[in-house]
Amino acid sequence: MYPLAEGLFAPRNQWYIAAWSHEVTRQPMERWIVNQPVAFYRTEDGEAVAVGGRCPHRHFPLGKSRVEGDHIECLYHGITFDRTGRCVKIPSQVHVPNVCRIPAYPLVEKWQWLWIWPGDPDKADPSLIPDHHVLGLTDPDYAAVGGPYYSVPGRYTLMHDNLLDLSHLGFLHRSTIASDGIAEAQEVRDEGPGWLRSARNMANVSCPPLIAKLLQHQGRVDRAFGMKWHLPALHAGFDHFHEVAPEFGTGRLIGGFRVYHAITPGKTNDAHYFFALARTFARDDVALGEAFINGLRATLDEDMFATREIEAMLGAHAQMPQEILLKGDTHCVRGRRMLEQMIRAEQAPGAG
Amino acid sequence: MYPLAEGLFAPRNQWYIAAWSHEVTRQPMERWIVNQPVAFYRTEDGEAVAVGGRCPHRHFPLGKSRVEGDHIECLYHGITFDRTGRCVKIPSQVHVPNVCRIPAYPLVEKWQWLWIWPGDPDKADPSLIPDHHVLGLTDPDYAAVGGPYYSVPGRYTLMHDNLLDLSHLGFLHRSTIASDGIAEAQEVRDEGPGWLRSARNMANVSCPPLIAKLLQHQGRVDRAFGMKWHLPALHAGFDHFHEVAPEFGTGRLIGGFRVYHAITPGKTNDAHYFFALARTFARDDVALGEAFINGLRATLDEDMFATREIEAMLGAHAQMPQEILLKGDTHCVRGRRMLEQMIRAEQAPGAG
Amino acid sequence: MYPLAEGLFAPRNQWYIAAWSHEVTRQPMERWIVNQPVAFYRTEDGEAVAVGGRCPHRHFPLGKSRVEGDHIECLYHGITFDRTGRCVKIPSQVHVPNVCRIPAYPLVEKWQWLWIWPGDPDKADPSLIPDHHVLGLTDPDYAAVGGPYYSVPGRYTLMHDNLLDLSHLGFLHRSTIASDGIAEAQEVRDEGPGWLRSARNMANVSCPPLIAKLLQHQGRVDRAFGMKWHLPALHAGFDHFHEVAPEFGTGRLIGGFRVYHAITPGKTNDAHYFFALARTFARDDVALGEAFINGLRATLDEDMFATREIEAMLGAHAQMPQEILLKGDTHCVRGRRMLEQMIRAEQAPGAG
Repeated sequence: MYPLAEGLFAPRNQWYIAAWSHEVTRQPMERWIVNQPVAFYRTEDGEAVAVGGRCPHRHFPLGKSRVEGDHIECLYHGITFDRTGRCVKIPSQVHVPNVCRIPAYPLVEKWQWLWIWPGDPDKADPSLIPDHHVLGLTDPDYAAVGGPYYSVPGRYTLMHDNLLDLSHLGFLHRSTIASDGIAEAQEVRDEGPGWLRSARNMANVSCPPLIAKLLQHQGRVDRAFGMKWHLPALHAGFDHFHEVAPEFGTGRLIGGFRVYHAITPGKTNDAHYFFALARTFARDDVALGEAFINGLRATLDEDMFATREIEAMLGAHAQMPQEILLKGDTHCVRGRRMLEQMIRAEQAPGAG
Repeated sequence: MYPLAEGLFAPRNQWYIAAWSHEVTRQPMERWIVNQPVAFYRTEDGEAVAVGGRCPHRHFPLGKSRVEGDHIECLYHGITFDRTGRCVKIPSQVHVPNVCRIPAYPLVEKWQWLWIWPGDPDKADPSLIPDHHVLGLTDPDYAAVGGPYYSVPGRYTLMHDNLLDLSHLGFLHRSTIASDGIAEAQEVRDEGPGWLRSARNMANVSCPPLIAKLLQHQGRVDRAFGMKWHLPALHAGFDHFHEVAPEFGTGRLIGGFRVYHAITPGKTNDAHYFFALARTFARDDVALGEAFINGLRATLDEDMFATREIEAMLGAHAQMPQEILLKGDTHCVRGRRMLEQMIRAEQAPGAG
Repeated sequence: MYPLAEGLFAPRNQWYIAAWSHEVTRQPMERWIVNQPVAFYRTEDGEAVAVGGRCPHRHFPLGKSRVEGDHIECLYHGITFDRTGRCVKIPSQVHVPNVCRIPAYPLVEKWQWLWIWPGDPDKADPSLIPDHHVLGLTDPDYAAVGGPYYSVPGRYTLMHDNLLDLSHLGFLHRSTIASDGIAEAQEVRDEGPGWLRSARNMANVSCPPLIAKLLQHQGRVDRAFGMKWHLPALHAGFDHFHEVAPEFGTGRLIGGFRVYHAITPGKTNDAHYFFALARTFARDDVALGEAFINGLRATLDEDMFATREIEAMLGAHAQMPQEILLKGDTHCVRGRRMLEQMIRAEQAPGAG
């Protein structure tokens, strides 16, 4: 499926962010993850649980059903499952057949996020989740603030295309967060197993006025800006301002940001988006953190608008229209190929 | 088509309830019956008529056209058909070709219902319609009240699945008409040509408080509860309360209800639902009858909700998801097989 | 595609009306023409431009982007095209590859209309556009008034079917512009290369009261009424009232109308409709012209209603339902065959 090869949608044996912690409560919630319906809830002890979202008896959505103790009970006929997906009650009969069960998805709560593994549970290794301390989310040098949840009105890959070509900042976000200096700076790209990184070092440049005011800094800066995609789920970026030094980036850190974009495939033509932001300065100013996030909503809305329009444009064509690839799409194309490899590896004989 | 075998939708050589009598007037009405557009109206003498709902000239819906005398006139170019489906006027030409005609559907008005035969008219035998006296609809021992019309937001078979597994009463209808005693009682099932029946006899049980008050009865009762599906159109049930007697059900009838659920296939993914209720007591109290029906609307809405959700769940899956069949589904599965037999019999060579 | 042969949609090497002049401004506008997205805008000099409406880089709609000078700039990444479709700027790189371009559509502004040629530009000959003086649009003997734009809720061919069988006037438009005399009059049809014409001459008939009042005429008239379809885009009609003369139509012209219906294929299941009206009398009375157009909106709404209903009826059938053709459909069928010939000629080997 565009922009991947025909027949390929998304890797399943991967960790994805399923929800904000606060979204999952004692009231079940339905969310489709990589084309599978999932029901989320919390046990009496507060542990978050993710199980298959469809009752295998009559297909009623368990995510629109009810929780009874630590179990989820189908609203239709009361068939009840425990957190491992095992059926524990069928009201209309005594015997509970083994075949009556639903998937249980590995779920890990870290920082304010719930990470889900929508594929083979036996392969789910929590150590594969990107290190939240290294990311800056749980590093006390940063104050990290979670943002809103967005239901993306288009296939998940359109959001990766968006994030892998930041030249859109000056255009789609012209009236919100446009930053001309970034587009002109030299982009350095590298990659490793399961990640892609882009960086722009801007030596001895002027500091954007808003940033200068926040950092209470006057004069020029060495600015380091970059983004690393931890495939397939999370893009983590930074934007650091240092005092100018003979060797770039070795001057004192005046202040900086980290930015997080998590994309999770939903149904075929939609996705989930989780945005967060961390900062090195004014870390105790809770109101400032909230104001930052809220101030970026207009920008995130612009990304949703572009995604909706492109999804509609693709849908309106009888045949998939041709696409021109530019130099700025190097990482975009590389990322697509890496996603395809992940999917194909799962489909290979014996990949199980 | 799920839950029937692939390619099978619904039997056509059968009587179905098409409408409440009061729905069909001199103003035409459109309703799809077993995937065919049908136009309903009344003649000057008040007789209800059902003809093909599509003008064969330019496909305009006759059910959104106009009645002229006893004929239906297409709103677009004025082509006019009589109640037998014969074209009687083409304004733009003198000659009316024989080929210009629409189907005419056998329609029988009984009690407050209009029964339609959407298949081969030559096979339509009104004596095949379930006996309305036996059903209790026209039996003076009962006061029967017609309910609302529901456009069902899902394929018709989901409603049969609903009605054939009453264990849902305690769950989907938990907050409205749940009745725990029924779920625990032994279910006795039997069947015959064109019908399936389920019965629960509850000997010497307490009478639900609301019923006891309505019946002005104190003390225990023999309660007989059951439902008979007259395939494919009508589920007719009863809930009778007798004085306790040594032999179950032979005590004096204190009072009871009859309940009617009619399901008619519409388009592929919708259906029509007609609900009625009869009672043995307070038969002259019109307001009471209306109040009963209105009080059940919340329950019927719950069935519509479940149907909509299941239809959506089925539609969201690229492949039909697997289904677990339980002991309580015995009649459900048996009913599906009987529907399939009816459809296959119509498709057999020489079945006409 | 019904009512044309399977696989045939619409001719592309033809002039169609794309928009009213006032619709195209410095703010880009998106409109699909013959299943292609088109972006319309005006240059700084006020010239109207039509280019491909999809950015070939990431499929964002250029018709929802922005104009910069005489160029159109994609809102997403700022890729910029000139009015010939040539890419003139890619912000993220210096080199602009030749392959990065969009279609440019020949566009001719005449009277209040913008005519577009959605096919091969090399074949676009403006002299093929029907002569606007002959049509009466720019003839000073007539006062021509443009009407509203309608987005047609059905395939474009349904509008041609509508216009080619005026027997619908007395039925669909029963309560608005029905005129029984016209339906009864003898219809004379003829055709030539690229056109079909229908005429009705009504000798020595009474003048409709409203017309008589407008024309300040008493007594009978020779009335000439007709419509000519300049395939595939425009139906141009007239309704002239002459003093009665021994030879029909040779008496003094008391007054008359011209009427224009332009139909343009949009996406597969929608279309565009432009209506205009001209009159010989009270030519300086601007308010009268506007009142005429506004008075006809209810009638045009009826045509949209019929088209929406028929499109829905066709879509609801699993198989295309059969159609009865009448004598009044002679031109309708002939027109379909002419459209099919146009499409097939474009698809022929070597047709370019």
